[in-house]
Amino acid sequence: MSDADAAVGAEVDVDLDFGDDGLVPAVAQDAETGEVLMLAYATREALSRSLETGRAHYYSRSRDELWEKGATSGHTQELREVRVDCDGDALLYLVDQSGGACHTGYRSCFYRRADGSVVGDQVFDPDDVY
Amino acid sequence: MSDADAAVGAEVDVDLDFGDDGLVPAVAQDAETGEVLMLAYATREALSRSLETGRAHYYSRSRDELWEKGATSGHTQELREVRVDCDGDALLYLVDQSGGACHTGYRSCFYRRADGSVVGDQVFDPDDVY
Repeated sequence: MSDADAAVGAEVDVDLDFGDDGLVPAVAQDAETGEVLMLAYATREALSRSLETGRAHYYSRSRDELWEKGATSGHTQELREVRVDCDGDALLYLVDQSGGACHTGYRSCFYRRADGSVVGDQVFDPDDVY
Repeated sequence: MSDADAAVGAEVDVDLDFGDDGLVPAVAQDAETGEVLMLAYATREALSRSLETGRAHYYSRSRDELWEKGATSGHTQELREVRVDCDGDALLYLVDQSGGACHTGYRSCFYRRADGSVVGDQVFDPDDVY
């Protein structure tokens, strides 16, 4: 069993607060390097599907649908572990990221400082992928 | 100049989307270890105050007020850097955390797996602090 299998089939046994809109923010972090890759949102179903399949799922607020990360781009996130915060209203996905997490081609969506300077690495050309 | 001074006085020169409620999620990450410490929310004012003072500020949705992390507990977050995600609707604060980030006494608010097992370190007794 690889490390990545550890999350598969895990039960949810903490109280979660999905709020009025049914969503919680979910932070994806590279399980090896600790790099914060992205922040998206999850429904209870997205969390369940993530734990069932071992691949990170989110809920797209713009497309209004369940979304498997990488289903289009191939840049999937194999799920190592899901953590829950103290209030049960935020998730942390520890993942093995294939390619880049960001649709812009950067490894992480957090590739810029607030002053606009670029600190991240571009790992693919989005024109080749989307 | 210490590393922590690097964020102080930085200008915001990216487009930010604070949405209808004026809030963006802000993830705090330990600048040294990479540990994700907490997820809270920031207003434009909270971000400005963070950059002005070099100490992490958030907006408390429950108390409905600007909030300097550690003002009560002493467990402040010295701000090293602020990153912005691709869509400009999420922030990443890279911080030097004093004590623990979580009001429960854990170093990180993400001290539990989804199955309830505890993986974090308790670094203070909340009864001594609050």
